[in-house]
Amino acid sequence: MKTAIIGASGYSGEELVRLLSRHPNVELTAVTSRSLAGRRVADQMPALRHLVGELTFTASNPAELAAHGEIETFFLALPHGVASEFAEPLYQAGKTVIDLSADFRLGSTSLYQSSYDQPHPAPHLLEAAPYVVPELADNAWKTATLIACPGCYPTSIQLPLVPLLKAGLVHPSGIIIDSYSGVSGAGKKVAENFIYCERNESMKAYSLPGHRHVSEIEEQLSKAAFADCIVQFSPHLAPMTRGISTTIVARIKASLDEVYACWEKAYADRPFVSVLPSGTFPDTRHVVGTNRCDLSAVHDPRTDNLVISSVIDNLVKGASGQAVQIMNLKYGFQETAGLL
Amino acid sequence: MKTAIIGASGYSGEELVRLLSRHPNVELTAVTSRSLAGRRVADQMPALRHLVGELTFTASNPAELAAHGEIETFFLALPHGVASEFAEPLYQAGKTVIDLSADFRLGSTSLYQSSYDQPHPAPHLLEAAPYVVPELADNAWKTATLIACPGCYPTSIQLPLVPLLKAGLVHPSGIIIDSYSGVSGAGKKVAENFIYCERNESMKAYSLPGHRHVSEIEEQLSKAAFADCIVQFSPHLAPMTRGISTTIVARIKASLDEVYACWEKAYADRPFVSVLPSGTFPDTRHVVGTNRCDLSAVHDPRTDNLVISSVIDNLVKGASGQAVQIMNLKYGFQETAGLL
Amino acid sequence: MKTAIIGASGYSGEELVRLLSRHPNVELTAVTSRSLAGRRVADQMPALRHLVGELTFTASNPAELAAHGEIETFFLALPHGVASEFAEPLYQAGKTVIDLSADFRLGSTSLYQSSYDQPHPAPHLLEAAPYVVPELADNAWKTATLIACPGCYPTSIQLPLVPLLKAGLVHPSGIIIDSYSGVSGAGKKVAENFIYCERNESMKAYSLPGHRHVSEIEEQLSKAAFADCIVQFSPHLAPMTRGISTTIVARIKASLDEVYACWEKAYADRPFVSVLPSGTFPDTRHVVGTNRCDLSAVHDPRTDNLVISSVIDNLVKGASGQAVQIMNLKYGFQETAGLL
Amino acid sequence: MKTAIIGASGYSGEELVRLLSRHPNVELTAVTSRSLAGRRVADQMPALRHLVGELTFTASNPAELAAHGEIETFFLALPHGVASEFAEPLYQAGKTVIDLSADFRLGSTSLYQSSYDQPHPAPHLLEAAPYVVPELADNAWKTATLIACPGCYPTSIQLPLVPLLKAGLVHPSGIIIDSYSGVSGAGKKVAENFIYCERNESMKAYSLPGHRHVSEIEEQLSKAAFADCIVQFSPHLAPMTRGISTTIVARIKASLDEVYACWEKAYADRPFVSVLPSGTFPDTRHVVGTNRCDLSAVHDPRTDNLVISSVIDNLVKGASGQAVQIMNLKYGFQETAGLL
Repeated sequence: MKTAIIGASGYSGEELVRLLSRHPNVELTAVTSRSLAGRRVADQMPALRHLVGELTFTASNPAELAAHGEIETFFLALPHGVASEFAEPLYQAGKTVIDLSADFRLGSTSLYQSSYDQPHPAPHLLEAAPYVVPELADNAWKTATLIACPGCYPTSIQLPLVPLLKAGLVHPSGIIIDSYSGVSGAGKKVAENFIYCERNESMKAYSLPGHRHVSEIEEQLSKAAFADCIVQFSPHLAPMTRGISTTIVARIKASLDEVYACWEKAYADRPFVSVLPSGTFPDTRHVVGTNRCDLSAVHDPRTDNLVISSVIDNLVKGASGQAVQIMNLKYGFQETAGLL
Repeated sequence: MKTAIIGASGYSGEELVRLLSRHPNVELTAVTSRSLAGRRVADQMPALRHLVGELTFTASNPAELAAHGEIETFFLALPHGVASEFAEPLYQAGKTVIDLSADFRLGSTSLYQSSYDQPHPAPHLLEAAPYVVPELADNAWKTATLIACPGCYPTSIQLPLVPLLKAGLVHPSGIIIDSYSGVSGAGKKVAENFIYCERNESMKAYSLPGHRHVSEIEEQLSKAAFADCIVQFSPHLAPMTRGISTTIVARIKASLDEVYACWEKAYADRPFVSVLPSGTFPDTRHVVGTNRCDLSAVHDPRTDNLVISSVIDNLVKGASGQAVQIMNLKYGFQETAGLL
Repeated sequence: MKTAIIGASGYSGEELVRLLSRHPNVELTAVTSRSLAGRRVADQMPALRHLVGELTFTASNPAELAAHGEIETFFLALPHGVASEFAEPLYQAGKTVIDLSADFRLGSTSLYQSSYDQPHPAPHLLEAAPYVVPELADNAWKTATLIACPGCYPTSIQLPLVPLLKAGLVHPSGIIIDSYSGVSGAGKKVAENFIYCERNESMKAYSLPGHRHVSEIEEQLSKAAFADCIVQFSPHLAPMTRGISTTIVARIKASLDEVYACWEKAYADRPFVSVLPSGTFPDTRHVVGTNRCDLSAVHDPRTDNLVISSVIDNLVKGASGQAVQIMNLKYGFQETAGLL
Repeated sequence: MKTAIIGASGYSGEELVRLLSRHPNVELTAVTSRSLAGRRVADQMPALRHLVGELTFTASNPAELAAHGEIETFFLALPHGVASEFAEPLYQAGKTVIDLSADFRLGSTSLYQSSYDQPHPAPHLLEAAPYVVPELADNAWKTATLIACPGCYPTSIQLPLVPLLKAGLVHPSGIIIDSYSGVSGAGKKVAENFIYCERNESMKAYSLPGHRHVSEIEEQLSKAAFADCIVQFSPHLAPMTRGISTTIVARIKASLDEVYACWEKAYADRPFVSVLPSGTFPDTRHVVGTNRCDLSAVHDPRTDNLVISSVIDNLVKGASGQAVQIMNLKYGFQETAGLL
């Protein structure tokens, strides 16, 4: 199957190039970028020199891409707002579109407006576009041809919480979430705040209290809980390139054993979620470069809280790896194809 | 005034050597260490070569030190349990003892027993030993000659919370605290878990849910609140040498303006606490190497929580700098002497 | 083909487990370690949880391993001296032994004695054991069943220099080499000098002027040059986990174009050496996690020196990746199998 | 004495603010910046919040500054070319000007032209402006009122080499120098190549073979040697904020003992040069934040080379600390004033 990446100039784009170049079932046929059109991928992504041969960036023209007869699946690694400009014609042309932007993550256009400060660019497509965390969605999404990939923070939060909320093992209200992200979470942003000497040996909170991912987190957790789930979410920057460490405090309604039984049932056959024993703590270093989410929890009898730790690589399970996993499942490839 | 550091082989000890060597009002007369006795300080702490001249480690003999006529103030940079062995004879000999260990931090011996897995080594001295965060304690402590310095995490937590709890501006119950510490927080521990390649590019929680500092945090917050204050405290390791970033979620009982007014009143004249505008976030990089605590807060109207960020250098304001600040205040030196 | 790793407790061992677990042509049947026997690999190498299933460390008994009927190829990730204890019986039993230690790197037993402070442990096997940098050795080695893998620094030095010395394009005398290595080059050494806070934000030379790799470097360069090649080699530690950056100064005997023509001829069909244009500089970050060596050079007309930069990942091209590449070539697998 | 910093928006400027704010003999009266005029220094340099009070950036107008009656000493932390625009009027007005730029470092205007791609902006002032490494210059410079501060790399190179060249202990020809610098050496440059994720875990050479500092290095070494000294200098970037590690290979003409005797004589009374025993290696981590240069050497009998290691903090001894040291010596303050 021929695939293309649209808007591949950033870190998620580069990770997609890496994953698709090595994938046993697909061919990476085109890589587009408005700013890099005409340049060799090997020169722009020197870490991938041995993988990409003479592949060259092409211009990003939605209509032309839609008319391309051979390419079946398109990955959109574009900013929100821009992604829709491509999703629409590709979707109409019958292509499969796996969108890594925020454009189709939220079911509510008013939430989109308030979170992204602009009207939703393609509200008529929302119905057609399922939001897919592969381990959490039922199989109906596999027939869709426009798919919304989750955000990085939301992935690290939903994987531990959704099964527990569905099973009623934690209270849906009063959930407190702290996340620390490696700097690649900000993308390839060239700004004083992101130069090496400003971020090295540095940790800080940002965007409190209303980070854009809050609406996505709450929409999904509320669906799982069949109840309104308002969370306190605090994102931070940490001095490392990749990785998200998330710590969640939720009031427990059951025993720790029931929590673990729930997780083990949910993830028994899933290759990319590792449930670690209570008292063992996930480490971002152990998931960097993988599509895994490692998680564990303790119960604090003094507060009756469940304290959950989860870690992912923000560029893999939090973005490009999960997008490839979605493609694998949709097309009946092995779930782990190209991801080990 | 002549001073000595007892047990100076670790990172807090080294920071004390740095601060006392440059201090305008005191002389660093002796530096002791059982393991390093006889060696030159300049060789063991090469970063301080230009400061320490021919100073040499001496053996750590409590009785001899107590009999030393000239040295007036002793800083104990020893493990808990061991510190008391020195505190006792020095205190009895009329010396001033500023203890950086946990031995005199807790008012309750049973809490000590459960937190440190051993009986309290000197319960009869507890009464004499005030616990001093200089910005928070009233002045009575200045006559004491045995003083307990706070732990690093507790310092980053008390500075923002204690004034608010005293003023009744946040609820004492349900407080959730996440802290991320640089690796020097673990001391100069030689263990596989602390070698460079294990900690670089790595973040992880540890010691959940019952880190030793919980008892100290709760004892102090409860005193401030005149109510039982049970917190959820989650410490983590971050890939940097120094710095603690603490994020606190507490239910607000007042307006954000009142919170800021309270802080500004508490810290108006204090050189080492910087209250940053709401929406500005403290950065560990900005306090590393200083005795400052930077803090700020936002109010989330959706949850009615106050979300506080605070940062310190764990070895300075979280340990040795605060100890020197205590000495400065006790002896009437300028509060900032040797700390700028 | 069934394979085993002997002595897999360190970082090269872990990298071998990663590479062989994903290899399309082989099965990783056994992983041994004296200290870890009985433990699950997934617990000891949590970064590989998704790859190793229930694989468990077994004891390292040379005789038993040699008697194992099914395993054909053994990778030795052992300290020098110890490796020979396994190489001997495995070799005698007709197994293929790919040795990552220094035991069979040097042709001269007296050099071994002076470099490693002990008599050579198996001089009678030296004849049988070719030293193989796959891009530089002729094909005769492929029939050997005991193969010496090069050291990390020597790999980064030979790849640029050997073709030039063979072609007489640089003077064999007066070569000056500076290398900076990530901390994993020291292995999983638990010592004060290697804890995080000692190595973070730190660079320093070590082992000047007589690092153990000097003898290996000189022996190989001299062979290439048909002349005695005495080099000045200065290794350093750099604050990163992986990667070696090597800068070489050699007196040029030809034009820069001839240098590039020589390299392009030598590496035209080799997937793991990238010759970068003069004026472009290799970056360790671009080769970390790959089996590539990136290299380039400039000519300084003022000094008539050729200044070469080369970079590798010390654990991949400098150790485990190169070992797998050797296996691939010996068994006629694709050279890149398991290495992309 | 009142002082001012002109062009204080970068990292050297910030380091100067830090040092002068704490200096016991001077007052920091003005801090100028075209881009930051009107802003509070505490907001732009949050690490210095506790030091700078209400100090505010003012505009950078050369004529106005020259007319300022009270300020006696001006530090120029400006780009080359721009520095002269300020040096001229300030010098003419009888002020003391300590220039951290390259404008007055080279004696030769043609070298300036070829190194900096522009004509020298003020050749008539060159005569008046001594180039001062305080440990190496004789005392005549102290009467000058326009002083050129050395570059960072050249400082790390001259301190070990100049005494040896003067004494004829090493050959002036064939000297090979490799330096690795922390990223702050590039200044506060906002460019893709300097964002965190590009420099973290990365080492690479740059500007080979003709870095701008080569002309300064060679001019000074040649003066010391009374002979033409053409060096091979290779600068690199290393993944850390501060620090330069320099390794120098020179052909020895004497014994190692004579080298050490020469250094010990040169630096016996100098507080900021530490000569370490041969076989001990300087570490950038030990000098970061200090004005020290640590150095040592070994003799390799196989090559008859002297291999020297030296380390400095590029922003302190390599820039702002050395500038303050120069002021201290010129004005008869203690050499270490404000620098411990």
